[in-house]
Amino acid sequence: MRILLSNDDGIYAPGLAALYEAVRSLGDVSVVAPSGEQSAVGHAITLSDPIKTKKIFRNGEFFGHAVGGTPADCVKLAACALLDRRPDLVISGINLGPNAGISVIYSGTVSAATEGTILGIPSMAISIGTFKDPLWETAARVARHLASMVHRDGLPPRTLLNVNVPNLPLEQIRGFAITRMGESRFVETFDRRTDPRGNVYYWMDGALEQSGETEGSDLDALNQGYVSLTPIWFDLTNRDALPVLRKWDLARPADWPKT
Amino acid sequence: MRILLSNDDGIYAPGLAALYEAVRSLGDVSVVAPSGEQSAVGHAITLSDPIKTKKIFRNGEFFGHAVGGTPADCVKLAACALLDRRPDLVISGINLGPNAGISVIYSGTVSAATEGTILGIPSMAISIGTFKDPLWETAARVARHLASMVHRDGLPPRTLLNVNVPNLPLEQIRGFAITRMGESRFVETFDRRTDPRGNVYYWMDGALEQSGETEGSDLDALNQGYVSLTPIWFDLTNRDALPVLRKWDLARPADWPKT
Repeated sequence: MRILLSNDDGIYAPGLAALYEAVRSLGDVSVVAPSGEQSAVGHAITLSDPIKTKKIFRNGEFFGHAVGGTPADCVKLAACALLDRRPDLVISGINLGPNAGISVIYSGTVSAATEGTILGIPSMAISIGTFKDPLWETAARVARHLASMVHRDGLPPRTLLNVNVPNLPLEQIRGFAITRMGESRFVETFDRRTDPRGNVYYWMDGALEQSGETEGSDLDALNQGYVSLTPIWFDLTNRDALPVLRKWDLARPADWPKT
Repeated sequence: MRILLSNDDGIYAPGLAALYEAVRSLGDVSVVAPSGEQSAVGHAITLSDPIKTKKIFRNGEFFGHAVGGTPADCVKLAACALLDRRPDLVISGINLGPNAGISVIYSGTVSAATEGTILGIPSMAISIGTFKDPLWETAARVARHLASMVHRDGLPPRTLLNVNVPNLPLEQIRGFAITRMGESRFVETFDRRTDPRGNVYYWMDGALEQSGETEGSDLDALNQGYVSLTPIWFDLTNRDALPVLRKWDLARPADWPKT
């Protein structure tokens, strides 16, 4: 199988190296990843600027392409231009820090997998549930296990797998939980400062807030020591809201009251 | 009512000016928009850099805050730091070009409204279905009409309104259609070039491809001369896929076959 790896922490990130080592014996592995950190870029793509690429070598051996763009750019460019053949599987990660709850919509890691899914390639995003002292080996073993499964069994149509792995030794992982994206989110604060020339700027900061129903959510599973598997897609329609809106009294513009 | 306006075409964009003129008599209108164009940035936020702000004046009168960040940054910063009081309604636009089909996930215009929704503020994104010779007046009138409706009736929980307006004179608009996000998307091509120093770079280009079931979709309504109203939310879980994944045979890591 042909596997494309990407991420949002950049081509030199240790999580990507761990993923590469874990899956390289499964098939023909290509790496196309951002040249620098691209966290929280969401599903940004580069339309108005050129996208630079550079071949990266490790220990004298070709490792992959560094791309001066976003994670979504990387997957598009890989599938449409850089690779000789279309990949059979896209894996994005391993991200340092969880991608769970509302944070998923800001995630560059998930967006690379979303892009694979849009292109019709089975795709998964994998993240580790810590920002420090990551046990890469656990998440890398999980990635390898799931890569084989997804390649064998496929994924539901237009759906990627968002994987969050607890930061525990492999033998302490309690198993897998099929979850929904939760509603926990970072509640932002802005630190206002003034530069030496009197101009105002802000630094965004924030703290994670659990909100909404947490049972069955991605973060809940992670906190309980399970690998969280969330089926994610890119159809943003709230279907439950369609009948509500259809009841609105929407006159044609010609019949609007004069204002 | 307190209305916050933002966009992704930047604070000097004519679509924002048209929106401002259309809604200013509805209440207390604030503008917080990117200092430059931020198209296709998706739901990017600025975590690793300072966010600069600048007050912008038009005809000697304060118009709004220009933000050196993304549309999502603008709405976060407005609601959490720049404005004295929380807005009652967020309107993002008027975008030059439709935000329909899969393009919605790349849309900075929609992401500003998504951010408002995450913050619990009724929000809408409004775009005009053309890239040239826009009839702003039509979309501006539609925005004003919908702003009053949304303020009066509210929106379904955790849902924003994604509005696409045909580029027609107001009297030729056939009415409103409640739609789902379609599957049409830009199919990318990459133009490979070499800079004067021999480095490779690419320009992304692409063409819109209609795909999937188009009936009832946002783009279908737009093409038929209706204003398309799509209820959009930020829960990316594919609920139909949950039972499929639950049938997977997911052993605990301790029981994995040795590889």
